[in-house]
Amino acid sequence: MWDFLKAFPLLLQMLFSVDTICALATPNGSGAIGIIRISGPKAIEITETFFSKKLADKASHTIHFGTFKDANQSLVDEVLISVFKEGKSFTGEESVEISCHGSAYILQQILAVLTQAGCRLAEPGEFTQRAFMNGKLDLSQAEAVADLIASQSRQSHQIALRQLRGNLAHELKDLRSKLIHFASLIELELDFAEEDVEFADRSELHLLMDEVLTRVQRLEQSFALGNALKKGVSVAIVGAPNTGKSTLLNQLLGEERAIVSSIQGTTRDVIEETLNIDGILFRLNDTAGIRDTTEVIESLGIERSLQKIEQAQIVLLMSDAGDHLEQTENHASMPPEEAINWAQKISLQYPDKKVIVLANKMDLRTSSLENQIINAVELITISAKLGHGIDELKSKLIKSVIADFDLSNETIVSNTRHWEQLSRTAENLIQAKKGLLTSISGDFIAMDIRAAMRHLGNITGEIEIDKDILGNIFAHFCIGK
Amino acid sequence: MWDFLKAFPLLLQMLFSVDTICALATPNGSGAIGIIRISGPKAIEITETFFSKKLADKASHTIHFGTFKDANQSLVDEVLISVFKEGKSFTGEESVEISCHGSAYILQQILAVLTQAGCRLAEPGEFTQRAFMNGKLDLSQAEAVADLIASQSRQSHQIALRQLRGNLAHELKDLRSKLIHFASLIELELDFAEEDVEFADRSELHLLMDEVLTRVQRLEQSFALGNALKKGVSVAIVGAPNTGKSTLLNQLLGEERAIVSSIQGTTRDVIEETLNIDGILFRLNDTAGIRDTTEVIESLGIERSLQKIEQAQIVLLMSDAGDHLEQTENHASMPPEEAINWAQKISLQYPDKKVIVLANKMDLRTSSLENQIINAVELITISAKLGHGIDELKSKLIKSVIADFDLSNETIVSNTRHWEQLSRTAENLIQAKKGLLTSISGDFIAMDIRAAMRHLGNITGEIEIDKDILGNIFAHFCIGK
Repeated sequence: MWDFLKAFPLLLQMLFSVDTICALATPNGSGAIGIIRISGPKAIEITETFFSKKLADKASHTIHFGTFKDANQSLVDEVLISVFKEGKSFTGEESVEISCHGSAYILQQILAVLTQAGCRLAEPGEFTQRAFMNGKLDLSQAEAVADLIASQSRQSHQIALRQLRGNLAHELKDLRSKLIHFASLIELELDFAEEDVEFADRSELHLLMDEVLTRVQRLEQSFALGNALKKGVSVAIVGAPNTGKSTLLNQLLGEERAIVSSIQGTTRDVIEETLNIDGILFRLNDTAGIRDTTEVIESLGIERSLQKIEQAQIVLLMSDAGDHLEQTENHASMPPEEAINWAQKISLQYPDKKVIVLANKMDLRTSSLENQIINAVELITISAKLGHGIDELKSKLIKSVIADFDLSNETIVSNTRHWEQLSRTAENLIQAKKGLLTSISGDFIAMDIRAAMRHLGNITGEIEIDKDILGNIFAHFCIGK
Repeated sequence: MWDFLKAFPLLLQMLFSVDTICALATPNGSGAIGIIRISGPKAIEITETFFSKKLADKASHTIHFGTFKDANQSLVDEVLISVFKEGKSFTGEESVEISCHGSAYILQQILAVLTQAGCRLAEPGEFTQRAFMNGKLDLSQAEAVADLIASQSRQSHQIALRQLRGNLAHELKDLRSKLIHFASLIELELDFAEEDVEFADRSELHLLMDEVLTRVQRLEQSFALGNALKKGVSVAIVGAPNTGKSTLLNQLLGEERAIVSSIQGTTRDVIEETLNIDGILFRLNDTAGIRDTTEVIESLGIERSLQKIEQAQIVLLMSDAGDHLEQTENHASMPPEEAINWAQKISLQYPDKKVIVLANKMDLRTSSLENQIINAVELITISAKLGHGIDELKSKLIKSVIADFDLSNETIVSNTRHWEQLSRTAENLIQAKKGLLTSISGDFIAMDIRAAMRHLGNITGEIEIDKDILGNIFAHFCIGK
């Protein structure tokens, strides 16, 4: 059974006789160079049929200049062909890259020639899938390839790159080896149960379980951060008209993006802008102000901003800290004290969101006001107009995203599938821990541990779990039985 | 002087100390692979600073897998680097191609690292320009690279490809060698003029001149075709409402592209569709019908279609050949006889355009009507509805573009600059021919020939003309003087 699983890719190859696939590897459009990638057992054989030179005898990782002709011997292009021998390519299969002039017409012609000669157009991700099938990448690394290509900021790029380099896989491997050790202790206890020998030191088991569970939960928790870094952190800027929301937006962006004026209600529509602070992408939503100032809740813009608040991870609630407030008639702006009340209501309704009250227009205030935390709501004094307090706000934004995670050294999970598997792993471990505490039979604990390992194994795509447990028992204990 | 010219690229290198350039070579956007190209004396030195392996000792045309790190040792990507040694690359310079994951973020990072390390971002076409400067391509071949990338149809692709392969250059080289021979005969005549020896056989000169002039003029004339193939052939479909213009358009396109109905004036706007017949791109303009039927000229749609006719190379004038015509009241359609009259007027006003009258709705006609040519206007009977006569029309369209040119073997000029230089060459040759006929002094003829060769030389970018003439005299005559 285990050998069957281990030989799974090879069996698949034999059963389904792996075909040769081809695809455009560069983006659509005109450019200097376009690349077509071919992978599979006939990659070289098919390509050299149309190329002016023989390729079968060429060394791996070499480049060959020549002409590419179609089946009617009509010249398609002058090309550079890169040869990658079996086992030495990205997919692990024999592969070829055709580098031609970056014309859509030529690329289409070459793909047409190749498909007529027996290549199949690759499905999305099929090269990476083959790399996984051939053991060149584990599943989490394969998933990182797509994330890497999609990454738009330094931090999302770093997370994807570290995942591609295998740091999540290593972390999981380490956790699994600890679970295997744990399971082997339990299994030994079971094997020798009739002999009344208690091999497993239960306090060691408790320590081991706590360590693994803590690390799994830490990974699980990192997903909120990883997902935010991957997709960008949504920030809603809400508040009454004329509190300076657009001015703040421009100040953060460092450019004139929104129309700013002192005329009430200038910002009619929601504007989304992206802001990169320290390699983290923030999506800033500047919500429309409300003209009707009779109702406080409406003047705060909360009703109309509700949707944006619901979508946002961070809510910046703008208030007007200026002394000019009393003098201005028909003014909907709200003093910081009132804003803090609103912020606390929002916090109660949406406990997952970070709500920050900004006391803006400090340049128009004579009395003092300090940055403070009142009932878990943070108040930051700024002058959007003069740019005061903006750096403070930026560090608060970063801090509320990163929390206590160490971005440069810690493994951050950014994939929903991984997060789901980690959640299930944590559930299994919590069950196992309960079992330990209630001195339940090792059988049940071992089942939970096996389930946890299966979930961890799902992340990297490994499935030979029971064999590992067996192997580990003999390797570690070597009792000659 | 001549050596200076020959050493021009080398001198430029020494005088301006050629820098190392880099650029994105693949189209913008996300893809599996993105490529950055680096060329210049420090291509390898700069690249290997950030790469995990040494590259200087690697053979040309080899590929190396490793990691690319920025100046702070922060990992940017896992990349494949292709090494091309000096003299063996496209530009002729030492070159490197970095193949990374096709993420805009990564590509930007790599370009940022390279430019901070001393690479300069390349100007448009600078790699090809360097290939020309280093003698890897002549000017006409260099120009073909851009045409090749922009080509959208088989014929424009073939023209660009043949030009890249040097067929125009070879043709011009042959013409120049004939002119050099001609000039050398004239020069000899001049050198020995005082000795009263007439070396140059003037009848041979006449024959030589006629041959060269005919070939230059043929190339000059081919530009109309080459330009049409490159840019697509503009075809205007004009005629009264309800003659079936949209039905014809759909029939040609083989798809339902325009709204077709029997309600008069359905086609309100000009629609441009491209049609590929035999590898030639036609741009079909279906012009709006006119509702006002009181004036024949307006009912023909000529007034409003005037602009389209002016822009078009081919005008298809739709007429209604159906017998139902008399029975339909308020019907603006025009019988073929009237359409032929209009076609002749259009032909007179625009002698460069091909005007074809289509006698449509033959399926609704009981009396016979044959395809014919009346006063140089072609009449083709069709039924757009049933698809009759469409193949005949397609061959007529192709024939009116290609004329008597042999697309598969003849050199077709598709570049305006080349055409201008060929026109000037022809002018010079016509002058020279006149000189021959009037027995003018060989001095003046030689001047015209030199001017002609200079213009031909401009096409391929060669400038050492006088040296060639001298060299040719001694090489051919070897009189030991």
